[in-house]
Amino acid sequence: MIVLGLDPSLSCTGWGVIRAEGSRISHIANGQVPTDAKAPMAERLHHLHDAIAAVIATYQPDRVAVEEVFSNKNPQSTLKLAQARGAVLAACGQAGVAVREHAARAVKKAVVGTGGAEKAQVQAMLKILLPGAKVSGADAADALAVAIADAHLKSG
Amino acid sequence: MIVLGLDPSLSCTGWGVIRAEGSRISHIANGQVPTDAKAPMAERLHHLHDAIAAVIATYQPDRVAVEEVFSNKNPQSTLKLAQARGAVLAACGQAGVAVREHAARAVKKAVVGTGGAEKAQVQAMLKILLPGAKVSGADAADALAVAIADAHLKSG
Repeated sequence: MIVLGLDPSLSCTGWGVIRAEGSRISHIANGQVPTDAKAPMAERLHHLHDAIAAVIATYQPDRVAVEEVFSNKNPQSTLKLAQARGAVLAACGQAGVAVREHAARAVKKAVVGTGGAEKAQVQAMLKILLPGAKVSGADAADALAVAIADAHLKSG
Repeated sequence: MIVLGLDPSLSCTGWGVIRAEGSRISHIANGQVPTDAKAPMAERLHHLHDAIAAVIATYQPDRVAVEEVFSNKNPQSTLKLAQARGAVLAACGQAGVAVREHAARAVKKAVVGTGGAEKAQVQAMLKILLPGAKVSGADAADALAVAIADAHLKSG
């Protein structure tokens, strides 16, 4: 099974593709989609939508995994995040691929073993779980983490 | 100039198209895009994206107008709204049409004359401003109102 993990954000959306066979996982690809902060919002959202549609067309995932959306303390940041998420999930809907959502704590627990793990711990575990994978950046790392968590969690 | 007003929402997105020539406005079309509450989120977002892309392709607006996004008291409702908005604005970006945002108060002021107008007052004014227009529902009415406001407000 091929799992695409996504870490949507307006400024830079991370993605990571892994293969999961039983309890074995391996890295296929990862990347980041930055958007031009000076471009109009609609153009940035379209860019995210198109880029993720292209990733799905290329790697043909059986499933998409994404962290559950949450409200953070800055309402404007939450709104930007949610709009980016809407554009990216619309691309998943277009491809007809199933999307599973996982709580941030469940992702950390699946990757590191504890729900309170720091970002650095998650990234260190990625190096062990996906040896040799060149990770494009922090957003791609988060996307790979949610893909790994999805592969480890029972299908729901 | 043809203006498409949008009132994005996950459960039902309203749209309204008007023609504006100087201070004269006339109705072209309006409608509502409901989504299936039982369908997966990604599918609902894709449906909104596609439906608005089809409206844009049909009516070829010169501009899209949408109310500014705001955080309401229920964070979950705000997140759903923002995701729907992201999917819909991505469709505008795809078509390369410019999007202008207007504050809710500015829309009411442009349509009724006061920023504190009630929904019923806005709908009553629509009947006067767009005589003969059959309005599909409350969401389509809100979409027509933002289109009218956009036509009345100086280009920014």
